[in-house]
Amino acid sequence: MTNVDQLRKDLVGLHEDLIRWGLVVWTAGNVSARVSGEDLFVIKPSGVSYDELTPESMVVCDLDGKLVDGVYSPSSDTAAHAYVYREMPEVGGVVHTHSTYATAWAARGEAVPCVLTAMADEFGAEIPVGPFALIGNDDIGKGIVATLSGHRSPAVLMRNHGVFTIGKTARAAVKAAVMCEDVARTVHIARQLGDPLPIAQSDIDKLYDRYQNVYGQR
Amino acid sequence: MTNVDQLRKDLVGLHEDLIRWGLVVWTAGNVSARVSGEDLFVIKPSGVSYDELTPESMVVCDLDGKLVDGVYSPSSDTAAHAYVYREMPEVGGVVHTHSTYATAWAARGEAVPCVLTAMADEFGAEIPVGPFALIGNDDIGKGIVATLSGHRSPAVLMRNHGVFTIGKTARAAVKAAVMCEDVARTVHIARQLGDPLPIAQSDIDKLYDRYQNVYGQR
Amino acid sequence: MTNVDQLRKDLVGLHEDLIRWGLVVWTAGNVSARVSGEDLFVIKPSGVSYDELTPESMVVCDLDGKLVDGVYSPSSDTAAHAYVYREMPEVGGVVHTHSTYATAWAARGEAVPCVLTAMADEFGAEIPVGPFALIGNDDIGKGIVATLSGHRSPAVLMRNHGVFTIGKTARAAVKAAVMCEDVARTVHIARQLGDPLPIAQSDIDKLYDRYQNVYGQR
Amino acid sequence: MTNVDQLRKDLVGLHEDLIRWGLVVWTAGNVSARVSGEDLFVIKPSGVSYDELTPESMVVCDLDGKLVDGVYSPSSDTAAHAYVYREMPEVGGVVHTHSTYATAWAARGEAVPCVLTAMADEFGAEIPVGPFALIGNDDIGKGIVATLSGHRSPAVLMRNHGVFTIGKTARAAVKAAVMCEDVARTVHIARQLGDPLPIAQSDIDKLYDRYQNVYGQR
Repeated sequence: MTNVDQLRKDLVGLHEDLIRWGLVVWTAGNVSARVSGEDLFVIKPSGVSYDELTPESMVVCDLDGKLVDGVYSPSSDTAAHAYVYREMPEVGGVVHTHSTYATAWAARGEAVPCVLTAMADEFGAEIPVGPFALIGNDDIGKGIVATLSGHRSPAVLMRNHGVFTIGKTARAAVKAAVMCEDVARTVHIARQLGDPLPIAQSDIDKLYDRYQNVYGQR
Repeated sequence: MTNVDQLRKDLVGLHEDLIRWGLVVWTAGNVSARVSGEDLFVIKPSGVSYDELTPESMVVCDLDGKLVDGVYSPSSDTAAHAYVYREMPEVGGVVHTHSTYATAWAARGEAVPCVLTAMADEFGAEIPVGPFALIGNDDIGKGIVATLSGHRSPAVLMRNHGVFTIGKTARAAVKAAVMCEDVARTVHIARQLGDPLPIAQSDIDKLYDRYQNVYGQR
Repeated sequence: MTNVDQLRKDLVGLHEDLIRWGLVVWTAGNVSARVSGEDLFVIKPSGVSYDELTPESMVVCDLDGKLVDGVYSPSSDTAAHAYVYREMPEVGGVVHTHSTYATAWAARGEAVPCVLTAMADEFGAEIPVGPFALIGNDDIGKGIVATLSGHRSPAVLMRNHGVFTIGKTARAAVKAAVMCEDVARTVHIARQLGDPLPIAQSDIDKLYDRYQNVYGQR
Repeated sequence: MTNVDQLRKDLVGLHEDLIRWGLVVWTAGNVSARVSGEDLFVIKPSGVSYDELTPESMVVCDLDGKLVDGVYSPSSDTAAHAYVYREMPEVGGVVHTHSTYATAWAARGEAVPCVLTAMADEFGAEIPVGPFALIGNDDIGKGIVATLSGHRSPAVLMRNHGVFTIGKTARAAVKAAVMCEDVARTVHIARQLGDPLPIAQSDIDKLYDRYQNVYGQR
C-alpha cells in the first residue's frame, strides 16, 4: 500500500473520531495529513457527509491547495491547511472543527486559561486566540501560523470561527482537537460558578515537559 | 420508483438524522417534503415513534393539509407545513423540532445574533423570532411565512414553541435544523461568560455570498 | 402470553428507553406496570444493571410492595410505587429517575414554570415540587400522591431527590419522564440568560385540552 | 481461569463503562484492581486507546508500581494507584478520570455539597477536595489517602486535576466514579440558578446507613 493509500484510509477513521468525540455536526470539520517526502497532503472532500466518506473520496492536493488527485472538490478549508503545511514543515497533520465549547471561547475572543493539569500536559500553556479572518485567501492560514509559531499549544481558537490544531501526525492533531474541546468545556463549566484556581507557571512547565517526554509507550 | 415512493424512503433517513444529531426526543419533531410537480407533500404520521417509522408509515397530504394517502393520521403540525408549501413555492422541505438551545432562545423571544462565521455561512443573519401562535389553524404557518419571507435565514424560532426550518429540499431543511441548534448552543455558551464579539455586516455578507455560491460539490 | 409475561417483556424495553433518552446512570431508575385486573404490579429488581435486565429478572409485587414472584429483591423504591397503585387506581405505570435537569430543579425545591407549548401539551401546568421524604416507609408515596392528586402534571419533582411520573400505562409514564427532563432542561437553559416569556393561562388550557384529546393516532 | 486473568478481562469491561457513561475522552482515564491475596494489582497500559484494550494489554504491577507482567508500560498514574493499595488494605479497586463536572469543581478547589438523596446514599457526605500535587512521585497518592482516610466518600476531587475513586472492588470504584460525575453535574446545574436546599445531617446519616446496608441483592 502506498503512503497516500494508507493516509486516505487513516483519514476515514480520524473523521469518525471527530464524530465519536462530538466535535462536529453535519459536514463541519476536516482532517488532513501530509504525504511524507512529497509536497502533497490528503484532505476531506468538500460538503460530503461523514457517512459517505471512503478512502477513495479523500482528495490529494499540492501545497498551494490545488487538487492533484480525487473525484471531489477539496474541503473549502483547504487553503488554510495548505498554508500551514507550507510554513510549518514539522507539521504532519491539521484538523479544523467548530467544536462547541472551544468555539464559544473563540466567539468572545478569549484564550482558555491553563488551570487543569491535563491542559498543562497537552497544551503547556493557555490555548491562544488567533485573528478574525475571512475564508477565500491565505488570511486564515496566516493567522494560524502566526499564533502557533513558537507557542507550545497545538491548538488555536480562530476568533468568531472555530479551532485549528496541528500535530506531527494527523492522529496527533485529532488528539489535540479532542483535548482542546475537553478542556475548553471543563474550564468553561468551572468558570460558571466562580474562578478556577491558578496553576503556578513552574508547575505547568514541569507537567508539560514530563508529558511530552515520558507519557505513553516508548 | 415514483417520486412519492422515493420521498417516503428519504424521510425515514431524515428523521433518523433528527435523532442522530440530538434534535428531538420521543415523537416531538417532523420532516416533510414537497412532491415535485404536484400539489402534495409527504410528512411524518402523528405520534408514531421514530423506531417505528417506515416508508409505508409516511403519509401524503394535499396543500390544505388533508390526508390523500396513508394509513396513519398526519403529524399534528401538518397545517403549518401545508401553509408554508402553499405560500412559498420555492420551498421543497420543512422541518419542525423543539431542539433544546434553539427553543431556549425561543422561550425568551430572543433572536440568535450572528457572531459565528458558520452562522454567517448558513444563515447570513441572526436567526429571527416568530410570533406566539396556537396550533389548530393557520396561525403557526402564517408566523413562519411572515418571518422568513425576505429573510436570509432558513430557520425561525417560534416564540415559546420551537424551530421551523425550510429548504429547497427536505435534506436542506434538516441541515438548517441541525446547524440552527449547533449555533444556538454555541452562542448561548459563549454568552454565559460574557459578550461574543460582533462580526461586521460586510463580513457577514461576504461569508454568506461565498457559502451559498461556492461551498460543496458543484 | 399472560398479562404478567407481556409486562415483564415490556419493562425491559421501557428501561432501555430510560438509557436511550439519557435519564439514568448505572442502576438509578426504575419503571413499574400494574397487572390489569389484579392487585399486583411488575417492577425492576434492585441494584441490577440495565444490561442484565431480562423479562425473567423483573419481579412481581402485591400492592403492599411485598414480593410475590421473582428471583431478585424488588427495587428499593418499590414501597413508593406500591403506594401510588394503592391510592391512584387510574394509574397503570410509574417511573422514577434522577434525570439531571429535573433533579436540579428538585434540589432547589423549585417548580418548572410552564413556558413552552410542548409543556402545556403534556403537563398542562408547571411541574410541581413534592416534599422532602426519606426512603423506608410510605412517606415518598404519600408525597407523590398528595402532590399529583388533582394536578394535571403526570410528573412530580421530589425535593432533593428526583422525579416520579405516572401514566395510564408504563409507556405513558416513561413518556412523561422523557418529556419532564426535556422541558426541565430547555427551561433551565432559557433561564440562564434571562426570563422566559410567560404563556397565558387560557392558552395553556387550550393547548392541554387539544393535546389530550386530539394528538396521535385515533 | 486464574484471578489475574479474570481481572484483566474485567478491566476491559470496566474501561468500556468509563466510555459508556461519558467519563473519559481519548486515553485519559484508568481503572485498576488488586489481585486478592498477593501484593499485586492489574492496571491499564499507558497511552493505549480504549478501542485497543484487550485482556492481554493490561499490565500487572507490584505495590511499588513496578511492572511485573505485561507487554506495555503501565498507566502514568500507576504510582498513585500503588500508593493507595499500599496504604489502604481494604481497597480492591481504584479509578481515575477527568470527568467534566467533577473536574470543574476540582478546578475551583470546591467540594460538592451533599444536597441530593442519591449523594447521601453513595457518598454519605460532601465529595471532598484533595491537594494540588504533581505527577512523578507519591504526592498524588498521599493526597488521595490523606483525604479519603476516615471519610465516607469513596471519591476525592484532586485540585486542578480530576477524580480518584476507591472501592472494595474495581466495579465499586467505577460505580463511585459514575455517581460522582452524575451528582457533580446535577448539583452544578442546580447551583446555576440559585442555592440547592440543604439536607439535614441526621437525614444524610440515615440515608447513608440504609444504602450501605440494605440496597441491592443480598
